[in-house]
Amino acid sequence: MNSEKFLHTLQESRKLDLDDPLRKYRDEFHFSDEKLIYLDGNSLGRLPLKTSERMTGVLKEEWGSRLIRSWNDQWYQQAAELGKKIAPLIGAAPDEVIVSDSTSVNLYKLLHAAVQFQSPRAEIVSDTMNFPSDLYIIQGLIEQLNGKAELNLVESRDGVVVEEQDVALQLNDNTAVLTLSHVAFKSAFMYDMKSVTQLAHDHGALVLWDLSHSVGAVPIDLHAADVDMAVGCTYKYLNGGPGAPAFIYVRKDLQEKLQSPIWGWFGNSEPFRFDREFAPAAGIEKFLVGTPPVLATSAISQGLDIIGRAGIDQIRRKSLQLTEYLISLSDSLLTDIGCRIVSPRNPHARGSHVAIAHSEAYRVCNALISPDIGNFTVIPDFRAPDIIRFGLSPLTTSFEEVFLAVNELRQILLEKTFQQFSAKPSGVT
Amino acid sequence: MNSEKFLHTLQESRKLDLDDPLRKYRDEFHFSDEKLIYLDGNSLGRLPLKTSERMTGVLKEEWGSRLIRSWNDQWYQQAAELGKKIAPLIGAAPDEVIVSDSTSVNLYKLLHAAVQFQSPRAEIVSDTMNFPSDLYIIQGLIEQLNGKAELNLVESRDGVVVEEQDVALQLNDNTAVLTLSHVAFKSAFMYDMKSVTQLAHDHGALVLWDLSHSVGAVPIDLHAADVDMAVGCTYKYLNGGPGAPAFIYVRKDLQEKLQSPIWGWFGNSEPFRFDREFAPAAGIEKFLVGTPPVLATSAISQGLDIIGRAGIDQIRRKSLQLTEYLISLSDSLLTDIGCRIVSPRNPHARGSHVAIAHSEAYRVCNALISPDIGNFTVIPDFRAPDIIRFGLSPLTTSFEEVFLAVNELRQILLEKTFQQFSAKPSGVT
Repeated sequence: MNSEKFLHTLQESRKLDLDDPLRKYRDEFHFSDEKLIYLDGNSLGRLPLKTSERMTGVLKEEWGSRLIRSWNDQWYQQAAELGKKIAPLIGAAPDEVIVSDSTSVNLYKLLHAAVQFQSPRAEIVSDTMNFPSDLYIIQGLIEQLNGKAELNLVESRDGVVVEEQDVALQLNDNTAVLTLSHVAFKSAFMYDMKSVTQLAHDHGALVLWDLSHSVGAVPIDLHAADVDMAVGCTYKYLNGGPGAPAFIYVRKDLQEKLQSPIWGWFGNSEPFRFDREFAPAAGIEKFLVGTPPVLATSAISQGLDIIGRAGIDQIRRKSLQLTEYLISLSDSLLTDIGCRIVSPRNPHARGSHVAIAHSEAYRVCNALISPDIGNFTVIPDFRAPDIIRFGLSPLTTSFEEVFLAVNELRQILLEKTFQQFSAKPSGVT
Repeated sequence: MNSEKFLHTLQESRKLDLDDPLRKYRDEFHFSDEKLIYLDGNSLGRLPLKTSERMTGVLKEEWGSRLIRSWNDQWYQQAAELGKKIAPLIGAAPDEVIVSDSTSVNLYKLLHAAVQFQSPRAEIVSDTMNFPSDLYIIQGLIEQLNGKAELNLVESRDGVVVEEQDVALQLNDNTAVLTLSHVAFKSAFMYDMKSVTQLAHDHGALVLWDLSHSVGAVPIDLHAADVDMAVGCTYKYLNGGPGAPAFIYVRKDLQEKLQSPIWGWFGNSEPFRFDREFAPAAGIEKFLVGTPPVLATSAISQGLDIIGRAGIDQIRRKSLQLTEYLISLSDSLLTDIGCRIVSPRNPHARGSHVAIAHSEAYRVCNALISPDIGNFTVIPDFRAPDIIRFGLSPLTTSFEEVFLAVNELRQILLEKTFQQFSAKPSGVT
């Protein structure tokens, strides 16, 4: 799709929506404000209407009336059942995925297990574009292993992409595990999962992918790429709700070899036997820990159902159309007024958001978000130092919204209305 | 209160309810089944009506309409605000408590931190009555520390009580940390927190209490007892919802000395600065990890408000009345037909549940729970090998319910209707 294909008119954006086979799925989500253009579904996905309905039942029936009996009725099975629903989205078997804790806690469990399993290998390799919490987890683990492990970071090219040859340079026979975000949270750069996994395997390293910014927007095939471990969040393109519990994938044959450092009763082979000695569950359940937050976990299912019906290939097709459209609009309408596309232009190396750099990005974001400026409340994300990040959620974002958002941004830059906002306070980003 | 004071009639139980100053609080909880006598609030507390209402707003307004903006509006502050509400219930300062993860994950963080801080001390002391998940967390930590630490368990007397002199025998100058459940999940035995903490301090050990089975039912004063660390769950007597996130307490002066092994972005000094290097938050926030499960966290607040209004001293008074009443009824009506009170008769050494032993406890529990036997569905908990556990929640359990439950149990034993149920399958407990 080239820029010339877009007429860059409101009519054209509406035509794209009319032609969009996923358009009907928008009706399955909560929309309450016609003046809101929400382009942050990659931070928090919209609320599926059926989730609202279901939660009333979870509260009044499951908790309120059935009380403790609901553990047997459905709550106890929920972690594994959600894993089964996520599995086809990531090319995993149903017994290789489970929902538990937060992405960071899960990353800790798996990295700890991997480093222990790979001993005496002592290096963890990641990249400078990885999500900070992922880097923090690694740093904490290194500190804890007290000289027995170290972290090597692959430098990105200008914070935008990582070249495979640069990854290859950091890998060696002392590498225990390579852990990367499949899609980078800032630039949207997407790795070629298969070839990078192969690079690490060539050195005997295990590979752990963080799928938070790709799952639900990009087809993922962990089996085809022979991936060892993965984690990911459910509250972005999976629409599972704010801070919804995350998922863990461990390849079947690795499950018995890896040992979680955090032994809790839900990871025990028979939690309700109350044995005094821990005996890990046989499968992926061994990576569970404590009693799961049922209300948050119960909200995950309905979004997965919608994705299942829409189909991940169709979703990716629209995601690419949306990001191409935004890039094309930006080229025509924003480049001449100080904006620069940061995200990769190669669609194979791009997830479902688009990062645009502008020297006044902080104030511009505040102007976009303000209901008092322009015709719409446009919600992107500011990412330091100069990125305006637009998340395009294929099931809920329309082409018209993209058109209107770019035009609103253009107006703000032309009229310099962003100057009403304070400059970025030091320490805030 | 002695047994003679009870006439052991339905009328007497109703009189006790009429005289109960906490009676009105029952109306603030969800009750939908007049035939249900729920005596398992120590596994899962009942649903506060206001929680139901609030959750509709959390779903439709906070998530549905405000979307990502709700993080700034209220979600980001929630962990600390809930900590402030829990603090007065446990005798802590507002900046010493925070809500995060599960009890087991929190126990892992604090135990790991304590052992690291106390190095080269290498022993963890607990007791054989501690909740299995707590013991599993310790076992996992020991395994991970690979010979650098070991676990010494204080043996209980018949699984019912632990004598302080037995704790004292396990403590020595190599003890890094003593970790115990304040109230035992099975027998309801309650430690004297102050004197046991003192015992450990005399040896230079740190003390970590698990308050899961006492918080909200028993007044706790961590400051008065000079406690170092504590964890606890919010879904029992705090009525926070199934698997609701747990809390962490660390005494102010210890906060800067202890380091969590799990470094996540919510524990960073400025999570949204996205710095590449972890810098722990200054206070109790450093023990946070990943993005919290907002829906589950949002359900915690209303139950705490009710407890705040009812007053923990009043709650304890009723709790003791309820457990004394049940024990007295049991003495008159159940002892002659094969039952035995397991919980301590000394009220100062007892939490808010009562354990009754019977050789057919498993089948008897099934009969109690069955709606087809007797006049009521009575829900206790079975705990292997022979315990029927009755949880008495002062805000929601009535004296009439206790009377009716004991009578239903008596009928089941007299008529042997429990014999309709299969014997305990092996492996199930």
